[in-house]
Parts: sequence; structure tokens; C-alpha cells
Amino acid sequence: MTTLKNSPLKAKFRRIPWSIWLCIPLSLLILLSLQTAVAAEETEELTPETIKGIIDTIWILIAAILVIFMNAGFGMLETGFCRQKNAVSILSKNLIVFALATIAYFAFGFSFMFADGSPVIGFGGWLLSGDAEVYGLDPFPEGLPVTVFFLFQVAFAGTAATIVSGAVAERIKFRSFMIFSFLLVAFAYPITGHWVWSETGWLGNLDFHDFAGSTVVHSVGGWAALTGAYILGPREGKYLEDGSMTGIPPHNMSIATLGGLILWIGWFGFNPGSELEANLNVPYIAVTTNLSAASGAIAATIAVWLRFGLPDLSMIINGVLAGLVAITASCDGVSYIGAIIIGSVAGVLIVFAVPIFDRLKIDDPVGAISVHLVNGIWGTLAVGIFHQELASVGQFFTQILGIASVGIYTVILATIFWLALKFSVGLRVDSAEEEEGLDIGEHGMEAYSGFVQMEDLTLDEEH
Amino acid sequence: MTTLKNSPLKAKFRRIPWSIWLCIPLSLLILLSLQTAVAAEETEELTPETIKGIIDTIWILIAAILVIFMNAGFGMLETGFCRQKNAVSILSKNLIVFALATIAYFAFGFSFMFADGSPVIGFGGWLLSGDAEVYGLDPFPEGLPVTVFFLFQVAFAGTAATIVSGAVAERIKFRSFMIFSFLLVAFAYPITGHWVWSETGWLGNLDFHDFAGSTVVHSVGGWAALTGAYILGPREGKYLEDGSMTGIPPHNMSIATLGGLILWIGWFGFNPGSELEANLNVPYIAVTTNLSAASGAIAATIAVWLRFGLPDLSMIINGVLAGLVAITASCDGVSYIGAIIIGSVAGVLIVFAVPIFDRLKIDDPVGAISVHLVNGIWGTLAVGIFHQELASVGQFFTQILGIASVGIYTVILATIFWLALKFSVGLRVDSAEEEEGLDIGEHGMEAYSGFVQMEDLTLDEEH
Amino acid sequence: MTTLKNSPLKAKFRRIPWSIWLCIPLSLLILLSLQTAVAAEETEELTPETIKGIIDTIWILIAAILVIFMNAGFGMLETGFCRQKNAVSILSKNLIVFALATIAYFAFGFSFMFADGSPVIGFGGWLLSGDAEVYGLDPFPEGLPVTVFFLFQVAFAGTAATIVSGAVAERIKFRSFMIFSFLLVAFAYPITGHWVWSETGWLGNLDFHDFAGSTVVHSVGGWAALTGAYILGPREGKYLEDGSMTGIPPHNMSIATLGGLILWIGWFGFNPGSELEANLNVPYIAVTTNLSAASGAIAATIAVWLRFGLPDLSMIINGVLAGLVAITASCDGVSYIGAIIIGSVAGVLIVFAVPIFDRLKIDDPVGAISVHLVNGIWGTLAVGIFHQELASVGQFFTQILGIASVGIYTVILATIFWLALKFSVGLRVDSAEEEEGLDIGEHGMEAYSGFVQMEDLTLDEEH
Repeated sequence: MTTLKNSPLKAKFRRIPWSIWLCIPLSLLILLSLQTAVAAEETEELTPETIKGIIDTIWILIAAILVIFMNAGFGMLETGFCRQKNAVSILSKNLIVFALATIAYFAFGFSFMFADGSPVIGFGGWLLSGDAEVYGLDPFPEGLPVTVFFLFQVAFAGTAATIVSGAVAERIKFRSFMIFSFLLVAFAYPITGHWVWSETGWLGNLDFHDFAGSTVVHSVGGWAALTGAYILGPREGKYLEDGSMTGIPPHNMSIATLGGLILWIGWFGFNPGSELEANLNVPYIAVTTNLSAASGAIAATIAVWLRFGLPDLSMIINGVLAGLVAITASCDGVSYIGAIIIGSVAGVLIVFAVPIFDRLKIDDPVGAISVHLVNGIWGTLAVGIFHQELASVGQFFTQILGIASVGIYTVILATIFWLALKFSVGLRVDSAEEEEGLDIGEHGMEAYSGFVQMEDLTLDEEH
Repeated sequence: MTTLKNSPLKAKFRRIPWSIWLCIPLSLLILLSLQTAVAAEETEELTPETIKGIIDTIWILIAAILVIFMNAGFGMLETGFCRQKNAVSILSKNLIVFALATIAYFAFGFSFMFADGSPVIGFGGWLLSGDAEVYGLDPFPEGLPVTVFFLFQVAFAGTAATIVSGAVAERIKFRSFMIFSFLLVAFAYPITGHWVWSETGWLGNLDFHDFAGSTVVHSVGGWAALTGAYILGPREGKYLEDGSMTGIPPHNMSIATLGGLILWIGWFGFNPGSELEANLNVPYIAVTTNLSAASGAIAATIAVWLRFGLPDLSMIINGVLAGLVAITASCDGVSYIGAIIIGSVAGVLIVFAVPIFDRLKIDDPVGAISVHLVNGIWGTLAVGIFHQELASVGQFFTQILGIASVGIYTVILATIFWLALKFSVGLRVDSAEEEEGLDIGEHGMEAYSGFVQMEDLTLDEEH
Repeated sequence: MTTLKNSPLKAKFRRIPWSIWLCIPLSLLILLSLQTAVAAEETEELTPETIKGIIDTIWILIAAILVIFMNAGFGMLETGFCRQKNAVSILSKNLIVFALATIAYFAFGFSFMFADGSPVIGFGGWLLSGDAEVYGLDPFPEGLPVTVFFLFQVAFAGTAATIVSGAVAERIKFRSFMIFSFLLVAFAYPITGHWVWSETGWLGNLDFHDFAGSTVVHSVGGWAALTGAYILGPREGKYLEDGSMTGIPPHNMSIATLGGLILWIGWFGFNPGSELEANLNVPYIAVTTNLSAASGAIAATIAVWLRFGLPDLSMIINGVLAGLVAITASCDGVSYIGAIIIGSVAGVLIVFAVPIFDRLKIDDPVGAISVHLVNGIWGTLAVGIFHQELASVGQFFTQILGIASVGIYTVILATIFWLALKFSVGLRVDSAEEEEGLDIGEHGMEAYSGFVQMEDLTLDEEH
């Protein structure tokens, strides 16, 4: 075989460029694909520095995987909280959104967010073609390789987009959601992200502190969700003319709880991974994150029990998430007791926030706005109160400045996107389709074929 | 911006203590939160030792995340094995239990378990305020940072508590379960854990060997489950007066199987992580663990097929878990063939144990006692038979001593807890509520709204 | 206690061999277990090399865990895509298959695949008894420890077997599937794997390139699935005599989507882990893998929308998987644009492949053949077109050679296995059982007890 392997004939064949044998367009694509080659190079020598760099790389890769796993968490949580007749719709949105986020962030978002540029926007290094310096990274091994930094950041971008999914569920057109998600990840999320997390961003340089994204990720997703839910309007029959409200019960609490637990797990990538290297702060952040999640769950349980008389499971789940969102900005520097206070307040907040949006007739089927926006804001403010190295009056006002400017920008841009969609492809399915469920109308299938559903019985009786 | 950043005005503002602006109680909380500050310090120099310490830290963090993921596994497994009318109840318990375990272990358990003290109990370093030495750790980088050691241990503590959930399912009051879980993690689990795993513990110093917790975690959870199931009594209608038994079928085998597979995955954190550092034993333990799980599954499949005529899926799942529980004590030192024998015996044991508890009229809806107690005992004994460095007659009797003393203590304490709850807040829902399902009675919601259930049809016919 | 510990009495007891106290067969087993002792040794000194070796070990362990998690992904995906009356059957198969794969690969497969031997088969080092050299590994720390290499490889072997499960679902006997899985992992998968991935394998030495197993794992599973689906024949009522086809709808799209997302996550172990060490290529591979998955999802969504008028969720999920399978062979060396092209083609391919197999009356309930075989072939060919270091005409033909030889061998061996089973224990359940569902007939239980199913209503009406 060695002879065949090195035979002159085979060698000759190899020299013929493959493109000759293929039609023009494919050749062009292939040429393009070979031109943008960015092969990772092997590290040459094992020094303590390169070894540390490899540990950082592997740790952030694992953190990125955990954050990507959150897509399963959001998917199960949001689907479970809605009605079965819209399950396929929500599942489809939560699956495709990470695919769209990946491509949008690869093509546009990553450059807008991290490339060198002005204090308000990054520019250059498109299609992940830049080296470390372009994206503000120290060269390896001091800094992370571009590849793993991109993967971690794209997972975050996907999170911001997937938050929107729940708030607009059960009435939005699939195509509008797809386009909105792409636009959000390509043009909205990365700009405000640039302000806070890039080297040159103006908010970061004003010492606005948002360690892992209470504002950058969760509030941004929350503001986009709020504008979407408001512009779309409530689900049919949710708010009655006499001012009362219909409870629309969740259809699958088993997968909703699973989703909540997956998100809890995923946050151990989200927060500790945001340290962007492997060091002793990483487990510290994991502990504050976990304490806040636990406190959020317990506080929400007690609050909902006292206020509504029963320990509602949806609120326990949202209490966990509220605690997680709220600790995200300050998890690097609060004390353990601080983490417990932040989480407890978040757990109480969620119980009081959900009914407020209902009173405003902003219909958010899964409570995404209360979890991600309200507690994103609370968490960002908490930096000014509880962060051991930063808490001060000045910091508190800087936090308000950051919350407000990111909020205003996101609301404006999201509103433009939503309205453009509303007056082009249309935002909302028609009311007959909404009544029947989006699964049949939008996707031509049911989520739970073979199971008898309440509607089937009603139909039977009508015959 | 640099000018603003360093402006004297801003600097002055920063000097004003924030507490002035807030009301008294919150200030006190904040002060408390700032006082207990335990900020993790950066490692200063990269030596092979510090790098190794960082690898250990990251690995144990990941192992802890895998163990925390087991909460999702137990949640899905136990919920799937029970009836849909109690699904919300079980999900709520399995979600809140890790939150409660986190706070209980943070406040009390961790200190009782690992702090310096007598051979029977640890004391000091409350609220995670101690340094490495207090909890019996070598200082970093020789030993793990306190933070990650705590996270790993709190995940274990949560496991012990969540085992109980399944055995008392479908009839326990939510509030009683919450209080019991807190008490178990705060005062029962850590004491026996101290005996075995702390530096000063009397059982550990007698060379009782329980590498990853067949006894310390699984038997303890199992004993607590056994006393709970016994004191609560069986579910209504389970055991009939003529001595026969009603089969109560599981309501969702899809999520039960998912739960089993998540637990299998989680055990790769549980056992290999118990090495408490990153070395070559870690993958060795992963292999023995996996061989035992596989053998448990196959043995249980064959045993249930031969004995009951069909390969019951519940038994295959419990066979996996039985193999995992049984290898937990000796996974560090058995041969591959030893691991296969241990798992196979466990898989057969589970098939024979489940009916025995039914004959004793101890109603354990998910088989938790058979999985965790019976195989926890078997696994602990197996150290004396199969551990390559330890197996001996003396060791075998030491293992019996450990099993018995941990068992007696846990049974006594758990009985006190259960009875105190029974005669205060009450243990069991009333029989009308049990009949209707705990989801409506305890939580005011259904798990699967919109799906027609058998009870709905029966009600229809009655009208 | 120290005195007791070192007491002469206890020391004497220890010297008595334990085997005396037990009956003969168990003693023999124990002896066997103690004889095959392969205790992992501690590393002695911390050099940069040993530290790097430990990082490699931990990273590959984590990658293996992610791949093992894919069993949950396949289980949920395949179960969700089938009918509820066969859910227990599919769950049982997907759970037991990894247990069987573990034992089969431990006993036979690993040695056939990696042990020294001829270019066509490995031999020796049975029961994981060899050292690194036996399995073609450099000694630690240059190479991986045998333990973690085995765990990673056994996870791959399990994947090949579990692919088959979906294609033969809803009609195969549980026992036949169990035996086939064992045979596949013990005798078929490892032989072709040896050709490509072992040091001495003839295909690998011809420079056939299949980085992470588009052919070695996915095509092999796909060929076995194809022969199985063909020999079993279609499900009752799937293809009607007038040439038309009945759509058999999936019963649980929530868990199917969850399965797809778990597989996406698992692939971050599958592909980057195949680097078999921790270096900078690892995150590069993660990025190409993710880009291809995202492109597959988007392309499949668009293709199915254009061709069938609606964005079918099953196709979006299968589009993700198609992109993942297709990038598997070349993920180490394609450019980002190349990865996007490969994934996009895969996403389109899946939409067109599924109906083709239906036209051929090969009934594959979950689309496993289209995902794993068609895209396994496409991905392997793509190496010759898009791999930046390897693409050439010669490579393209080498890829064809590899695909063909692995395919022919697997088809022949799988056919022999299937036919042998057909004429011994029987392959297919009888048609009454198929009509009723395999859950009752094969396992004596329902997956969703308490839920009213369409069949229940029909039965009611018949009375």
C-alpha cells in the first residue's frame, strides 16, 4: 500500500485541480471556501503559559456548550408553559433561532460587537476572518483563541434571541419571528453589547459593570420581548372586555420543569464562563450563582404561597430563573449573603411583576419579560449595592445610565423591526388560525398525535 | 470619557456610603453582605503546581455541574413513574429540594460535615466563612479551593434529599417534604457524612471505605425514604384488604427513561469527581462505573424477563441505577470484571427487592428504596469482596459496621423528623385530595392541561 | 481508634483469604476479578508533559460523556417521531443498546478495532487487558490513557448501534434488536473501524480521511439500518396497494425536539473530542461543526417550505442532524464557508432523500437512513472537495473507495445477522401485536397510562 500511496500516478491526479471537474458556481463556492482558510495552528512548545492557555480554551469551550444547552432549556420551558396546540410552533422557533443566531452572528454580529471601531460600534473582521487583535483579544496564550471566544459569544447571542420567543408565543408568524431573530442578533444585540463588553465601548469605559449580561443579554432580550408582546397584542380571549382575565394553563409542566433545570445547569456555563479564563474566580462565581438561584426559588415559593394561597409550580421555576438572571451582573463580586439577598429579592419580584404586565394587558405567555427584563434591571442595579469592590452611589447611577441607554436603543430598534415586519410579511396569524392553533396552520402537524385533547371532545359533542 | 471617569466629582460621590440612602434593614443586610466578603484571589504565578490546581478546580466544577444535573434526572424519573394527577407535586418537590439543600448545606450542613471538630461532628466555618484548613483541605494548589469543594459537596447533599422524594410521592404534603429536606441536609446527612469523609470522622479512621457514597449518600437517602414511606403508609388503594395489590402504572415512560439516562450521565460526575482531583484514576473510575451500569441494565432485563415473562422498562431503568449505586463505594479500586459482577448482582437484586417491599406493604412508588438502600448496602459490602487493595474479611466487617451505624443514626433521626412533622403540620394530604391528585389540591394546577385523561371520561359517564 | 486500626487481631483477620468463607463459584469470579487487576497508577512528577497529558485525559473524558449523552438524544428523538403505542418499545431499545454496546465493545469490539494486528482486523488485549501500546496509543503522557480512550470509543460504538433503532422501530422484536446490536458492536462496527482508524488499517493507510466518523460511525449505522428496514419490511398500512402512502404522524414533538438539541450538544463531544487531545484545533472543530448544524437547519427549513409548502418541524430537526453528520468527516480541516456549504447541502439532501426511500418502500419511521447514511456518504465525499489540506481528485476517489468498501462489508455482515435472526428467534412481531402496539405485546405496559388515546375512543364507539 505504501507504493500505491506514493505512486507517481496518484501524485499526478492530485495535482489536477478539482474545480475543473465541477460546474462554475460550485467551483466558485469552493474557491471561496478555500480562500477564507483559517486553519488553527498547533502550539509548538509546552510552556506553563501555553498549557494555561489550553486549559482556558477547553474550559470556555465547555462553558459555551453549557450555554448552547440552554436552548433546550428555553425550548422545553416555553413549550411546556403554552398550550399544546401551539407546541410545534414554539419548538420550531426555539430550534431554528439558534441556527439563525449562529449565521447572523458569524456574518455580522460578532464584528459589530467586538471588532475594533468607535465607542458605539465595531467594524471589520467579518465572517470570523480576523485574528485575535481584531476582536480585542490578547494573542494566545495570554488571550483566548478567536474560535472559542466566538463560540462562547454566539451562544450568548442566541440566548438573547430565544428569550423573545416565549413572550410572542401562540400568535406570531414563524417567518416574522425568524426574520426578527436574525435582525436582533445581527444588528441590535451586538451594538449594545459593543458598548459594554468591547475594549472601546463607551459604557464599559464609563465603568458600567455587567459581568455576565443581566443587561447585555437578558434585558436586551427582555426589551425586545416587551416591544414584541405589546405590538402583537394579547392572545385572543386572554383579556376580556369586562376587564377580567382568563387563565390560560400550561400544557406540560414536566418538560417546563425539565427546561428550568436545564437552564439552571446552563447558567454554570453562562456566569462562570464569563470569567473568560480558568482561575479561582470561576468556582466562586458558580457558588454565588447557585446561592442566588436557590434563594430565588425559595423566595418565589413563599411569596406566591402567601399571596395566592398555593405554591404554584410555574412561579417556583420562574423564581429559579429570576435568581439566575439577577445574579448575572454581579456574580463575580458579591458576597455569599449578597447573592442570597439578590436572589431572594428576585424571587419576590417575579411574583409581583407577572400580574403587573397582565394589568397592562401585555400578554407574555411564559413570563419572559418579568424574568429577563425586570430581573435583568434589578440585577444590574444590584451591582451598585452589593458588589464588594464596586458598590457606591456613583456606580449605582452608572448602572442606571447603562440600563437606560441599552433599553432605549433596543426598544427603538426592536420597534422598527417589529413594525417593518408587521407592514410587510405580517406579524400575527389570523384569528381562525390562532383559535385552531399555530401547529396546524403554520406547520401542518400536531405535537401530540394520538392523544385525545379537550378540543376533540368538544368537537365530538358538537356533531 | 476618561475625564469623567476620573473626575473629582464622581470620586466624591463614590466616597459617600450608599447605606445612607437606604432604609435601616436593607443597610444592615448590605453591611452583613459586605462583611462576609470572601473574594477569591487570583493565583499570582504560573507554576506546574498552580496549573495542576486550576485543572483540579475546573474538573471538579464540571463534575459538580454533572451531579447537579442529576436533579433533572431524578425529577423526570420520579415524575414519569407516578400518576399524572401527581406530576406537578413531584416536579415541585424535585425542583425545590435542591434549592433547600443549597441553603441548608450552606448554613449548617457543610460545617457539620467537614469542619474541624470531634470524630462525630464538625463545627465552625459557618456560612462558608472558613478557609481551606477549616474544612480539612490542603491549601490551594495542593488542595481544592473551598468554593468548588463546597459546590461538589452541596450537589451530593441534594442527591441524598432528592432520593426521598420518590418514595413518599403521591401522598405527602409539600410543606412537610420541604421541611424534612431542609432538616435532612442540615442535620442528618452531614453528621454521618462527617463520620466517613471528614479528616476526623470515626468511621473513616476505622478504614471504612465508601469512595463516592453508596452509604454516605445513597443509603442515607434510602433509609430516610424507607422511614418516610413506612410512617406515611401506602397510597390509597395500593394494597387491598384481601392481601392482593393494585398495580399503579407510570404515566410517562418517555421522561422516566430520559431521567434514567440523565442520571447515568450525572454519575460520571458523581463517581469520577469523587477523586477530588484530576488524575489517571478519574477515567479508570468512569470505566468501572460504566461497566457496572451496563451490567445492571442487562442483568435486570434478563432477571425480570425470566421471572415475570416480559422485559419491563421500569426494571431496565432501575437496573441501570442499581448498577450505578452499587459501584459507587468501590469504583476506585475494583477490576473491570469486579465491576461487571457488582453491577450484575445489583441488577438482579433490584428485580427481587421491589416485590419484597410490596409484600411488607411499604409503598415506594418509584422503587427508590430498592435502588438506593438495597444497592447502597450491597455496594458498600462489595468493597470488602472486590476492592483490589482492600478486600478482606476485616474490611468486610468494617463495612458492615459502617452500614449499620449510619443506618441506625439515620433511621432514628429521620423517624424523629417525620413524627415531629406528622404531629405538627401534618404529613399526609387527606384522602379526598389524594384521590383527586395532589396537583389540584396542593398546587392548584394540572400538569397536562388540555389532554383528556381517563378520569375525565369516567366523570363524563357518571353525569 | 488508631490502636484498633493497627491491632494484631484485626491484622490477623485480614490475612485470612476471604474466598474461604464463600462458595466455590463466587470465589472463582472474585479470583478472576482480582486477577485482571489493571489499577491506574498515579503520575509521579508534575512536568509540563504530564500536566498536558492530564488535560488531554480530562477533556476526552468530558467529550466521552457528551457522546454518551447522545443516547438520551437518540432515545427522545426516535421515540417522539414514532407512535405512542410503541414508545416503551423504542425507549427500551435505546436504553439497553448502550448497555449492550458497552459489554460487547469491552469484550470484543475494542480489541478488533484498535489492537495490533493485520490491516483488516485487530487482535489481542481482550477485556481491556492491554497496555497503551497494544491499542496503538503512545504511552502516557504523550498518548491518552487506555481507560479514557476506551470510554470515548465505546461511546462511538454505541452511537452506531443506536442509529439502527429508529429505522427498525414499531415492528422489530426486542430480543432480535438486542442480539443484533450486540453483534454489530462486537463484530461489524469494529472491523471497518479498524480499517480506518487503527494504526495498521488498510483504508487509513491509503489516506482515506474520516475525521470523526461520517463513514466509520454514521454510514455504518445507516447501512445496518437500511438492511434492517428492508429485510423487516414496512410497517403495516404504511404503503397501500394503490401505490399511495399513509402519513404516520409522530406522537411527541416536544421530546423529539429535545432529542435533536441534545444531539446537537453531544456532537460537541463527538467532533472536537475526535482530536483526541486538548489543543487549538478543538475549538476550531467546534465552530465548523456548529456552522454546519446551523446551515443544515436553515437549508432544510427553506427546502421543505419551498417543496411542501410548510416548515415541517421534523425536517428542521433532521436538518440539524444532517448538517452534523455531514461535517463529521471533514470538520478538522474545512473553512468556515466550506462548513456552511456542507451543512446547507446536507439540509437540502435530507428533504429530498426521505421521500426517495418511501418511494422505494423502505420504511424508516424516523428518517435515520437519510440522516446517517445519505449524509454520512455526502460528508465523506465532502472531504475530497472542501478539506483545505486534502481536497483533490485523488482524495475524492479515495473517499469513494472507503465509502464503498465499508458499505459493502457492513451490508453483507448486517444482512447475515438480520437473516440469521429472522430464521431463528424471528425478527418481527406478529401483525396483531403490531396493530395493538409493541408496548403491550413486548413489554406489557403503556408509555402514557391515564391519558386517553385516539384508539380508546374508537374502541368505545365499537362497543
